[in-house]
Amino acid sequence: MMNIICSDLEGVFIPEIWINVAEKTGIEELKLTTRDIPDYNVLMKKRLGILDAQGLKLKDITDVIDTMDPMEGAAEFVAWMRERSQLIILSDTFEQFAGPFMRKLGMPTLFCHQLEVDESGRVVDYCLRQENQKQKAVAALKGLNYHVTAFGDSYNDVTMLKEANKGFLFKPPANVIEEFPQFPVTTCYDELKPLIESALAEGTGL
Amino acid sequence: MMNIICSDLEGVFIPEIWINVAEKTGIEELKLTTRDIPDYNVLMKKRLGILDAQGLKLKDITDVIDTMDPMEGAAEFVAWMRERSQLIILSDTFEQFAGPFMRKLGMPTLFCHQLEVDESGRVVDYCLRQENQKQKAVAALKGLNYHVTAFGDSYNDVTMLKEANKGFLFKPPANVIEEFPQFPVTTCYDELKPLIESALAEGTGL
Repeated sequence: MMNIICSDLEGVFIPEIWINVAEKTGIEELKLTTRDIPDYNVLMKKRLGILDAQGLKLKDITDVIDTMDPMEGAAEFVAWMRERSQLIILSDTFEQFAGPFMRKLGMPTLFCHQLEVDESGRVVDYCLRQENQKQKAVAALKGLNYHVTAFGDSYNDVTMLKEANKGFLFKPPANVIEEFPQFPVTTCYDELKPLIESALAEGTGL
Repeated sequence: MMNIICSDLEGVFIPEIWINVAEKTGIEELKLTTRDIPDYNVLMKKRLGILDAQGLKLKDITDVIDTMDPMEGAAEFVAWMRERSQLIILSDTFEQFAGPFMRKLGMPTLFCHQLEVDESGRVVDYCLRQENQKQKAVAALKGLNYHVTAFGDSYNDVTMLKEANKGFLFKPPANVIEEFPQFPVTTCYDELKPLIESALAEGTGL
């Protein structure tokens, strides 16, 4: 079979975007995550409301994002994977936020969601491309006869890891490790590499 | 909706590989195409037999391919598209042949087929990942809620163009133009750009 790798983005190649935007803008409320507000839709409406209240437009946020860097070694690791396999990044972030990072990572292909922005640059709404998009993308790639190797760091990656032929956790929180003991846990790119090499060899039938 | 572009490879971004390998190696028989031998499987077995008879291994072919360049302006055009949309190249070539070109095109994502190579580097067989893979990939991407814009140059692109939300022909032969008048015909990247921009705007609902 032919190989494709599907990976998460935030927490794997780049820092968590909202938390860093909160820190760099000094707007503490933007640090809220699904741990504070479990309903993602409520959380996103809250975030967009904060942007409006602060008069922040899309460009203000992407200017902040532009100053952020991928994690150390991430660009090299992405290049390492792309020499060995096709790669698609599956992320629940928004295209407009991810753009600056993609350029720094060598423009890998990214499947994610998008923000709705009006002519003035105000973020009006957000649009999830598809519910459970990570699992569905992996299933679609398997339907195209790809052997899928996947890795991610958290809960929203688990359905993707379960659907993939091989799945790994990367720097996951303790509760994810406990709840999903079936996925090998890695803590750095050098630990991921041999697992990926072995998964790719399995994919090609070697 | 969110946008993705699916494009052909040979005849669109890079020259026809077998014909150029034939010219650079001086092996005239490798110039045979499906116009000469309509059954693709018979043609491929013939090609592999020629490689064996000439004692050519995979590296001999990829060394020749390494000396070839993408078409003039192709790398810039690929970069132009990737600033505006996700891009997946759908090609009926083999991964091992396409590799050197992908590096010259900035490593876009490629869905294609693969050659089976033994330990000595001899090309033993070829493996088509999937029949009608271009159409199936477009259908899968539509299932992931992507608006698909596609273009290609010849017969093996037509099912992809039909499946896509928007399809264009690029430098097609006269018989393809006649047989499929529903697809706008373009002859250079500068002609494709406004059609792609308009298709992407339609995709985002603008």
